[in-house]
Amino acid sequence: MDDNIRTEISSLGEFGLIDHLTRNNDTRQAGTILSIGDDAAVIDQFGRQCVVTTDLLLEGIHFDLMYTPLKHLGYKAVAVNLSDIYAMMATPTQITLSLGISNKFSVEALEEFYEGVYAACERYNVDLVGGDTTSSKKGFVISVTAIGEVAPDKYVTRNGAKVNDLVCVSGNLGAAYLGLQLLEREKKIFLENPGVQPDLESQKYLVGRILKPEPRADIVDWLQENDIMPTAMIDVSDGLSSELLHICKKSEVGCILYEDKIPVHDDTKAMAMQFQVGTAACALSGGEDYELLFTIRQEDYEKISRNYDISVIGYITEAKEGAHLQTKGGAKHKLTAQGWNAF
Amino acid sequence: MDDNIRTEISSLGEFGLIDHLTRNNDTRQAGTILSIGDDAAVIDQFGRQCVVTTDLLLEGIHFDLMYTPLKHLGYKAVAVNLSDIYAMMATPTQITLSLGISNKFSVEALEEFYEGVYAACERYNVDLVGGDTTSSKKGFVISVTAIGEVAPDKYVTRNGAKVNDLVCVSGNLGAAYLGLQLLEREKKIFLENPGVQPDLESQKYLVGRILKPEPRADIVDWLQENDIMPTAMIDVSDGLSSELLHICKKSEVGCILYEDKIPVHDDTKAMAMQFQVGTAACALSGGEDYELLFTIRQEDYEKISRNYDISVIGYITEAKEGAHLQTKGGAKHKLTAQGWNAF
Repeated sequence: MDDNIRTEISSLGEFGLIDHLTRNNDTRQAGTILSIGDDAAVIDQFGRQCVVTTDLLLEGIHFDLMYTPLKHLGYKAVAVNLSDIYAMMATPTQITLSLGISNKFSVEALEEFYEGVYAACERYNVDLVGGDTTSSKKGFVISVTAIGEVAPDKYVTRNGAKVNDLVCVSGNLGAAYLGLQLLEREKKIFLENPGVQPDLESQKYLVGRILKPEPRADIVDWLQENDIMPTAMIDVSDGLSSELLHICKKSEVGCILYEDKIPVHDDTKAMAMQFQVGTAACALSGGEDYELLFTIRQEDYEKISRNYDISVIGYITEAKEGAHLQTKGGAKHKLTAQGWNAF
Repeated sequence: MDDNIRTEISSLGEFGLIDHLTRNNDTRQAGTILSIGDDAAVIDQFGRQCVVTTDLLLEGIHFDLMYTPLKHLGYKAVAVNLSDIYAMMATPTQITLSLGISNKFSVEALEEFYEGVYAACERYNVDLVGGDTTSSKKGFVISVTAIGEVAPDKYVTRNGAKVNDLVCVSGNLGAAYLGLQLLEREKKIFLENPGVQPDLESQKYLVGRILKPEPRADIVDWLQENDIMPTAMIDVSDGLSSELLHICKKSEVGCILYEDKIPVHDDTKAMAMQFQVGTAACALSGGEDYELLFTIRQEDYEKISRNYDISVIGYITEAKEGAHLQTKGGAKHKLTAQGWNAF
């Protein structure tokens, strides 16, 4: 390393950084079927396939213990990893959990956290099989790795979308983002007036979406039961724009997304009005919804239309046409996404 | 949770805390063969077995960037996880790597770290298949998960040691601990007199043992080639005492360990003298040697004695006789171990 050269991480951004650092990554093991660059890796275990994903959650970056109950945090730490496994159309089976714990935590606090972990394991039928526990100088550190299984070659990556495929998304988008804005606002009010208790009762839906997301196991089940094999799939953790651009880049295609087709919950609409932001912006850039975004062949349209919890929001075009949002007013905007840029 | 109760984590210690938090951990998946409590978990993948382990490394707790070259750190982060896979008599095949990075890091610094990661992957023939990269408010956070494979039921746990089995250890012990003491001493001198450059050239062996440990893949290979199936196995990360007590507890046996049989490198002896500590203490409590500690049946003694890199250091007794160290002077001391207690 030449000490005179210093490239700031911010100059590459999250995805650029990962691409840069893994550009020379070799594959040696015949069992490595799918490596870096999707929701999860796929490993062939003697002819059967195992799916692996991992997430790192850091206090002050991914969660704020001031308004995040530890039980919810434990649940969410597991849920977001399972979401990556489901996004491969695979079934999660085991997780490992590593924690870095500062001495401000009591055993009782950790018990609460584990209650949430166990609740998610029970709900999604996975086993906690290992981990590592260590002290941390500052801040709570959570690392979860999830393992799943899938029938040979039945996993779905980000790179199979074809021209004319339909773009679908489960549930609704933008709620988690507004839930977070709400919590941040109430935190600020509380810090300024410690006597005031926040009233979040009426906003249970939005707050629930950010604090206790549920991975869409039900959608994966339904697709399998109805014999629909998506051509590409990803879970919505960073926001619809970012995820759709991942699919387009990996699949080497473009897309048209219709603003008026993006599913938004009534509570999201009402709160977006309060915060004076557009609902589409919340859906496109908000993230943390943990819905499934996927593409299907046109012939599966009739089947898909029977599931009211899945919306068709656009279609895939040739790469040269780019990725665009068609607004309600009829204007066409280029889709953009940042990923994080906390540096 | 009753807010009036607060149990300090330090009152349980590392192992007590893990036992406490996982006491109600259920197993739901038929594929979960071995769960929390060993070097790695074992998962049945349709009749074949997959081994998983994970480690969390935090700046200021596990490493000091003042004297740890980033390339070595990347190498070590991988190596210590592979060591856990080898300690199951399994073969590592893939890893995932998650990083929390503060903005003090440049892209070039991360490249150095990844160089070490890739060097370890190449040396041990494993693939880096995934991970997560995030910003960190403070401190470098590293989480590695390693996956390996093993022929059905050919893995070795901590709980198979039987009375009269021989206790064996690979390589030598205590060197990593003294390497660390040396680095800490030179750091202190440097901080007090920034002009003085530390002379570590003459202590390459000890410093190498702490900064760039090698997991004992060669020992696992040799045992397999010579058809020796250890009855129990663990890698030495916390120190000989702690690891041997794990085997005793899990196997429900006792042991006698002979101080004069503990293998110690000449450089370790010389440095122990400088630091005025006993070499046995360094081996027993030092940790980070990443050697393999295992038990074998007496009938394998002749075979084992042909490998000069394996020492027989004691034998297994009935549980009621406890775990003891027999000193060079003939005295008998109860073995004790703390695990970490940084809280």
